[in-house]
Amino acid sequence: MSTCRVNSSNDEGFMACALDLAAKGRGPTAPNPCVGAVLVADNGQGEEVVAGGWHTQYGALHAERECLAAARERQLDPCGMTMYVTLEPCNHHGKTPPCTEAIIEAGITRVVIGTRDPNPIAAGGIEKLREHGIQVTEGVLENECRDMIADFLHWQNTAGTFNIVKMATTLDGKIASRHMVPEPVSSAESFARVHDLRGMVHAVVVGGGTFRADNPSLTCRQDELPKDFRQPFGVIVTSRLPDKAGEFKLLRDRPDQAIFFTTEEAARSTNADALRELGARVWPLGGTTGDLDLKQGFERLRDELQCYYTLIEGGGRFAMQCVESGLAQELVQFIAPRILGDDQAPSAFSGRENISMSQTRNFRIIKTQRSGPDMMMVMRPVEPDAE
Amino acid sequence: MSTCRVNSSNDEGFMACALDLAAKGRGPTAPNPCVGAVLVADNGQGEEVVAGGWHTQYGALHAERECLAAARERQLDPCGMTMYVTLEPCNHHGKTPPCTEAIIEAGITRVVIGTRDPNPIAAGGIEKLREHGIQVTEGVLENECRDMIADFLHWQNTAGTFNIVKMATTLDGKIASRHMVPEPVSSAESFARVHDLRGMVHAVVVGGGTFRADNPSLTCRQDELPKDFRQPFGVIVTSRLPDKAGEFKLLRDRPDQAIFFTTEEAARSTNADALRELGARVWPLGGTTGDLDLKQGFERLRDELQCYYTLIEGGGRFAMQCVESGLAQELVQFIAPRILGDDQAPSAFSGRENISMSQTRNFRIIKTQRSGPDMMMVMRPVEPDAE
Repeated sequence: MSTCRVNSSNDEGFMACALDLAAKGRGPTAPNPCVGAVLVADNGQGEEVVAGGWHTQYGALHAERECLAAARERQLDPCGMTMYVTLEPCNHHGKTPPCTEAIIEAGITRVVIGTRDPNPIAAGGIEKLREHGIQVTEGVLENECRDMIADFLHWQNTAGTFNIVKMATTLDGKIASRHMVPEPVSSAESFARVHDLRGMVHAVVVGGGTFRADNPSLTCRQDELPKDFRQPFGVIVTSRLPDKAGEFKLLRDRPDQAIFFTTEEAARSTNADALRELGARVWPLGGTTGDLDLKQGFERLRDELQCYYTLIEGGGRFAMQCVESGLAQELVQFIAPRILGDDQAPSAFSGRENISMSQTRNFRIIKTQRSGPDMMMVMRPVEPDAE
Repeated sequence: MSTCRVNSSNDEGFMACALDLAAKGRGPTAPNPCVGAVLVADNGQGEEVVAGGWHTQYGALHAERECLAAARERQLDPCGMTMYVTLEPCNHHGKTPPCTEAIIEAGITRVVIGTRDPNPIAAGGIEKLREHGIQVTEGVLENECRDMIADFLHWQNTAGTFNIVKMATTLDGKIASRHMVPEPVSSAESFARVHDLRGMVHAVVVGGGTFRADNPSLTCRQDELPKDFRQPFGVIVTSRLPDKAGEFKLLRDRPDQAIFFTTEEAARSTNADALRELGARVWPLGGTTGDLDLKQGFERLRDELQCYYTLIEGGGRFAMQCVESGLAQELVQFIAPRILGDDQAPSAFSGRENISMSQTRNFRIIKTQRSGPDMMMVMRPVEPDAE
């Protein structure tokens, strides 16, 4: 299969294929986990992937069943084959019947599993498979498979959204020139990836400074959007609500998708009333200017508007605030190989003072990829007690 | 061969192997180019690499002859095999006889070449091989093969050293906390790579600020150094020569390897005399404080002390000055996945003012690699007219 990123025919190579498939479901599967599966058979000269599937969207078939269906569509009988699946097959009747049953019925003889299902209701699949004489191998590429369901675990354990902080920087960590003229930092390829992200998330969030300086539309702009595509909500975090709403693209083009996170005082102002009149939402949060209770806002996004993923697009102070408050579940940084060299230009993260190197906020890299001339790094926060 | 980074059995895969071997010679081969070669034979089930070699040091055998010798050591007859070599085999009698002769005599039937030899004296190899009925394929991974000899081309075309700027930064481009306390930014793995670089170059260069703040020894510290290993020269660029020499590790431990690039005025001072008394070199350069004629200094390093590679290790102003003056031939940046978030902390590159995004100094990434928890990016400057 061309989707397979490696050609090494071993457990890790096949699991890597399943992981690549799992990632394709990111977005529409929320709040379910992303799961991928491949079927492997011996072609006489060695083992190869003969079919693959993934959980494509919430409510649809699970990866295991998609994969079995893909094999049968190609007139292949899965009986005697090995299945690689990134997450333990479910063992309960949810929106779909248990995947363990489908695997047993298909005559699969070996199942290789990335990581156990942390959901106690769905778990038990491994034991069930073993009871039916199927050979089960656990923990192949376990860390990568757990990273794949970090969003799912976050939704299970918190009431919040899974927030992805996006940054595009120079080699010296700058996000703009000192005059804040809106000029692209990264390449067209990276720009396209940002729009992929905007197409995946349910809300795009910016600080008030960025909103006023850049007047962003916060839309996903891609050539081929599905007919039923819904643009992400545009969220602005500011204690200074705009008084000339018509000057802002977001408010002119789609005010009903604009949401302001603001102070309680600002939410009672005439500006707030005017924004509500336009159809925008103005949400008062606890806390003070520069220190709003963002957590409350993100939880409301999920609770009222079924937002599961958000994309936080700056600026530097706001991004730092999100990281410091533990509200950044993922960091996607595009590093353009260029140097600005001006100390007065704004940095990717700012607003902290007298910080020593032992007080940095730490991440771990889970993926790196070239993005045209740029480098893309995907990172997750390191828990303080894991360091 | 375990040195082979890919297992795809095609021209590009085999050339990639030859490139990996070529890189092993970087340092000791100067001022010769780094070249690698592999021999490929059909084992019945497909083609595979059966031997490899590289130019190991200046004056030693060329890669092609090393590779042929490696095959014969394994009792393999190269006759009928294909050779992959990153640079066109030489066709002249230099320190060694022409490689074309060795290839012809060995009965090689096909030669795949990365890039033509830009040196007119050594060139002509391709024509010679073809005259002898050998099938020659040119230009496989040509860009990578040209990047491999960028240092060689630089030495051919200029009188200067090949300068590698090394930076270790946070995600927000910071190289230290605002208080400049010497604390590591990147990981132990990246630190080890920096020492590999120090072991490869002939001089390590720092600005005066870094010298005074960090009191660096500028030595290569590795567990296993060859017996005849010679530490790189330590070069300090400053208009303020130290008056208390004994306070500095470099001047205490190995004053005869210390070199000061300074102003003509400072070079006439009593501090300069005291440094010379210790055995250090004090070189007056043209230009003024903060704008010394560094080019002159690097040329003198090569001319008088046979320095071919230097490692420029900061600080941010000095590195920016080197980049702006076109004196940075390579940039190696270690990006630690951590955030400082303090605007007052020093950035990787600084000293420019009122720079717009259209005035950045641009690089292209030639290699990326994980370095423990960090990301390592190797870059080369983009020529202004190539953009």
